[in-house]
Amino acid sequence: MHDFDPGYTHEPYATLVRSHPGPEIYPPEDFRVEWGPVFHRGRLDGSARVLVIGQDPAAHEAVTRRILVGTAGRRVQGFLAKLGIDTGYVMVNTFLYSVYGQGGGTAHAQDPAIADYRHAWLDALMEHNAVEAVLAFGGLADTAFRTWHATPAGRRYTGAYQHMLHPTYPESASSSGSTTLATAMAKLLADWNTALEALHGAITRPDHERPLVPYGSTGFTPADLASIPEADLPAGLPAWMRSAEPWARREGATPGEKRATIVVEVPETLRPF
Amino acid sequence: MHDFDPGYTHEPYATLVRSHPGPEIYPPEDFRVEWGPVFHRGRLDGSARVLVIGQDPAAHEAVTRRILVGTAGRRVQGFLAKLGIDTGYVMVNTFLYSVYGQGGGTAHAQDPAIADYRHAWLDALMEHNAVEAVLAFGGLADTAFRTWHATPAGRRYTGAYQHMLHPTYPESASSSGSTTLATAMAKLLADWNTALEALHGAITRPDHERPLVPYGSTGFTPADLASIPEADLPAGLPAWMRSAEPWARREGATPGEKRATIVVEVPETLRPF
Repeated sequence: MHDFDPGYTHEPYATLVRSHPGPEIYPPEDFRVEWGPVFHRGRLDGSARVLVIGQDPAAHEAVTRRILVGTAGRRVQGFLAKLGIDTGYVMVNTFLYSVYGQGGGTAHAQDPAIADYRHAWLDALMEHNAVEAVLAFGGLADTAFRTWHATPAGRRYTGAYQHMLHPTYPESASSSGSTTLATAMAKLLADWNTALEALHGAITRPDHERPLVPYGSTGFTPADLASIPEADLPAGLPAWMRSAEPWARREGATPGEKRATIVVEVPETLRPF
Repeated sequence: MHDFDPGYTHEPYATLVRSHPGPEIYPPEDFRVEWGPVFHRGRLDGSARVLVIGQDPAAHEAVTRRILVGTAGRRVQGFLAKLGIDTGYVMVNTFLYSVYGQGGGTAHAQDPAIADYRHAWLDALMEHNAVEAVLAFGGLADTAFRTWHATPAGRRYTGAYQHMLHPTYPESASSSGSTTLATAMAKLLADWNTALEALHGAITRPDHERPLVPYGSTGFTPADLASIPEADLPAGLPAWMRSAEPWARREGATPGEKRATIVVEVPETLRPF
């Protein structure tokens, strides 16, 4: 049997999805609106105890139409597993659309119209789930949470909150030249270990009780990652879209062509032919 | 507001989707099982009066996860519109997976296990919709219908049936060299005009009453095509995925690379940047 995510069939999510904002609120010079909004990943049936806030969807997410499915997703999934949370989560992003260009979305961290729509999701998720912990990955997600937490509905949330480094911080920080990959990775793992300690006691109803196993100091081990559950993706998507192998990339001879193009390639080791 | 297809949330479709067959029934040498099954397009809420049977999903369909959305889909959509059917249809294919190689699926037209699963869909659709007409596009779809119609459940269907040439018959026949594009196109349009005449009276409850406008003899005009409704695709998919412009292609230096790769490119005229 093949499980799948039933998607946005019931309220309040059906109306939220139907009324998503477009380029009138997300300027096309800063967001890849042409790939459409990507809304969430995880449970919309009221069973989530952890709410994850990420940043924005990338190439893999434009194809699966669910957030946090690439490298970042498997790292987050592994973090949740360490807390005993295998399925009891729901994830939304700071931005509905993929961020484009150098600014990295920072210029829009406080946009009221973008926040309004995000708040409608956060309000709905908090109202319909007994959330015990909120995790914000990256600075923009932290700003998103704090902005929501200052609203009347947000103030009612009294559970745990943890601002953590973004799961691909090591790669992005080292590629910008401000640090080495090893240093940035060690910083991420220490940060996530701090979060594990802080959150472990806050989750009173894990999917599975597990002894807390912290990260090492040099990198993610295979045991530190976890697979995206089949039940998190839409019906019919092949299993390699949830694998550890990258399978989507932006490609093009010019910036315009690269922005317009996503190449989807079945990983070589996972081809049945 | 943005409409979307709610998908496979209710029975019997949820169970049908969960229990879809894989490579044990669809041999990977003849089917692109690696791209996953694509199940349907159109209404699953009981409101379909026309049932369309197509052949197999292609590159565009692997991305949208709904069938008949490329060139073939817009031609079929235009045919339905001429009958006054704008939304009251449901479409399934002969095969869940894209056909690979020269055989074109013919070798599997009679496979009992493939037929069993297809029959489960046809049984469900016929039980839950007041279908007035079945359209089969192409020879394999015709075989699929006739095989089902010979079953006990199939025999209960007494509505109209029309076997029609496949919507991309002109392109496929002329590229094989057996005829010219102009000749094949004229043959297709004459065939579809015959079907229009036969079916027009059979649809007693169209979405919109329209005078019957036949096709010309030389090609499809813009008025002969129709857009895929937003409500037919999953939530968040961008509008250009329903446009007249092609936007997905298989690409690769070797047959294996080409089989493993789909390039998705936003049509140049539809880029917001």
